Amino acid sequence: MTLSKKPVTGMKDILPEEMEIRDYCISVIKDTYGKFGFTSIETPCIENLANLNCKAGGENEKLIFRILKRGEKLDLANAQTQDDVSDGGLRYDLTVPLVRYYSAHEAELPNPFKALQMGSVWRADRPQKGRYRQFMQCDIDILGEASNLAEIELILATTTTLGKLGFSDFKIRLNDRQILKAMAKRAGFEEEQYDEVFIILDKLDKIGEEGVKEELLKAGYSDESVKTFVSLVTDLQNAKEPVKLMQETLVEKGFLDASVLEGFDEIIEAVTASKGDFFDLEFDPTLVRGMSYYTGTIFEIAMPQYGGACGGGGRYDGMVGKFTGKQVPACGFSIGFERIIMLLLENGFKVPGKGEKTAYLIEKGMPKDRISAIMKEAQDARANGSIVLIAMMNKNKKFQKEQLTAQGYAEFKEFYVEELKK
Amino acid sequence: MTLSKKPVTGMKDILPEEMEIRDYCISVIKDTYGKFGFTSIETPCIENLANLNCKAGGENEKLIFRILKRGEKLDLANAQTQDDVSDGGLRYDLTVPLVRYYSAHEAELPNPFKALQMGSVWRADRPQKGRYRQFMQCDIDILGEASNLAEIELILATTTTLGKLGFSDFKIRLNDRQILKAMAKRAGFEEEQYDEVFIILDKLDKIGEEGVKEELLKAGYSDESVKTFVSLVTDLQNAKEPVKLMQETLVEKGFLDASVLEGFDEIIEAVTASKGDFFDLEFDPTLVRGMSYYTGTIFEIAMPQYGGACGGGGRYDGMVGKFTGKQVPACGFSIGFERIIMLLLENGFKVPGKGEKTAYLIEKGMPKDRISAIMKEAQDARANGSIVLIAMMNKNKKFQKEQLTAQGYAEFKEFYVEELKK
Repeated sequence: MTLSKKPVTGMKDILPEEMEIRDYCISVIKDTYGKFGFTSIETPCIENLANLNCKAGGENEKLIFRILKRGEKLDLANAQTQDDVSDGGLRYDLTVPLVRYYSAHEAELPNPFKALQMGSVWRADRPQKGRYRQFMQCDIDILGEASNLAEIELILATTTTLGKLGFSDFKIRLNDRQILKAMAKRAGFEEEQYDEVFIILDKLDKIGEEGVKEELLKAGYSDESVKTFVSLVTDLQNAKEPVKLMQETLVEKGFLDASVLEGFDEIIEAVTASKGDFFDLEFDPTLVRGMSYYTGTIFEIAMPQYGGACGGGGRYDGMVGKFTGKQVPACGFSIGFERIIMLLLENGFKVPGKGEKTAYLIEKGMPKDRISAIMKEAQDARANGSIVLIAMMNKNKKFQKEQLTAQGYAEFKEFYVEELKK
Repeated sequence: MTLSKKPVTGMKDILPEEMEIRDYCISVIKDTYGKFGFTSIETPCIENLANLNCKAGGENEKLIFRILKRGEKLDLANAQTQDDVSDGGLRYDLTVPLVRYYSAHEAELPNPFKALQMGSVWRADRPQKGRYRQFMQCDIDILGEASNLAEIELILATTTTLGKLGFSDFKIRLNDRQILKAMAKRAGFEEEQYDEVFIILDKLDKIGEEGVKEELLKAGYSDESVKTFVSLVTDLQNAKEPVKLMQETLVEKGFLDASVLEGFDEIIEAVTASKGDFFDLEFDPTLVRGMSYYTGTIFEIAMPQYGGACGGGGRYDGMVGKFTGKQVPACGFSIGFERIIMLLLENGFKVPGKGEKTAYLIEKGMPKDRISAIMKEAQDARANGSIVLIAMMNKNKKFQKEQLTAQGYAEFKEFYVEELKK
């Protein structure tokens, strides 16, 4: 049996340098979201397969790492399908587990419930550069809040957190599934066609306006509908007063409920009023977001200078009902944690110091009583807030000190057996 | 397909109250170990099965949650054993992954390497009260340090951490596998019998001195050996100067290397000199520790008032060599994280406050511009360090405030549509 030094395919070991940044980000995130009244929760990494396959996971349901049944339950001789031999799976996101958790514990939780989850998820994706099969997700969700307060708080909390991590000049793109639907309806599409139409619209920034038109026509939609839909979208995109335009073209013509537009406007106004100027908030009628479970507002963090989205979320009012039969309004925002870490690493981010770093180097052969005294001295320094690393002095002391300097140890204290050498 | 609200068998959801304590402990642990120069690392939760089954996991190797093969690799029709259908497993501890990690990255890591790992592990144990199939482990390890500095630092770092978490009056029990072996040798046992003898000795606090004798005799060992061994152990246990006694009975008679005893003594002296008086350090010749990979010093945190061990560790110099062929000294200490959390919960531990907690309650129907102003006010208060939760005012405001008070919100600010009502 050969032992493998490498991590399993598609997963990675995290070295101290990256880990320091991750730990720092985790603490900033927990602290900042805490200021907004979000409380941390945790669920097991394994979920029942039926839950994972409840259609809320979209394409991710194909990427589940399944857990083999154990003991007598594993009947390989009669097994036909993977369902026969597996009884659980590693979670592929934190949303399905959250909804299960909320369904199980609703009575014990505050209402509305503001949850923060940071945890690993697993997807058996084709391994590729920079994408791993285990990665950290960082979600905040508000369950039980039907008003736009949820969206406003989620956007303010997430952007405040990004600001604390040193990010600026990014953009929050904002849209609403109801607005998308109203445009589709106005253009004459049928309800069952909406999803396909939106998936094609989602490619707009890749294939352009003409590309979207072409694909829609190729999918068999009428000239008239395609033309109306695309011009509705682009007119809105270019409008100086998009809310006014939506009022005229969608609300007044009966395609969109007035309260949806009012609520949408409220989100924009409230966030704009209190957001500070380190990021922009922008209505984007082309924003679709992949997951089909979204029912209302959707949003995404755009960092164009870093080539794309760094997180997103939206309202998903229908999902809790799948577990409980009772409709519970829900809205969430997920930060692209791994992407944030990658950006900080690429930009040479340095974690703010946590105390003076001193290395004690002890010559070999130091007598017992002196060792005790050195240990005591170190303990006292640590109690006063210093970071003290103690190591035996290497033969090549110069190299040792260089290594320690690279780890951030700025001061050295050397202890010799014959005190005079000091 | 029915969705299940419950977590999978044997695993648990963590509610906000417990999670707050967990987050607090994690931050104290990371901070305190950081003061000793330990750096955080992380490995994937899935490891190759060959690594997990390398005999370093003891009984835990029988408790692995295996990962089902995927795609073409899963050939159920021809599968005979679970090895045919699984290609990875969830880690059952953090030691095997650490050793693999070190083997893979040795060149990029400081030498000696002081690692801190906090992460979940999984064991398909029979579910029982208070024991879960997913739980957090918290390990510190020093790799590449042959001297007793490793033991001294591990014990000081761990006990300092426990002290910061408010624990006192506990005991660190200390022994050495070499001393155990010397006693067994002196009693006339053969090397291949040692493991069995130690396993029986390990039961001493459960079955007593007579019980140990009885079991050893039943296992077929000679009267003479059993008698000698047990009296060596108990004499040492009762000795006022155990080091002196070991010098006479083990070192001078050639059963124990003088340097082992000197080193052992050095650990006791150095820790005693700098430890403070909130815990005791005690040589305990009956301490065995389960894992067979230990090669030298072993230690355990005893909290008798809470019914048992809350962590432990020791030196395991042979394990890195299994991966690299090169011997690397290694020593580790693991805190029983879940046990610590349980104790804090049971004792009604309250996490130190992180800021003033204020709840803003907004009456329904608040106009847009007022919502914006309230959000701005909350953002400013958060920037100044306050925790501000914003919620829509419920019909039953009294109940709502009671709930919020239970969550620690001491101040309330109410916003009414008609300002006068305020």
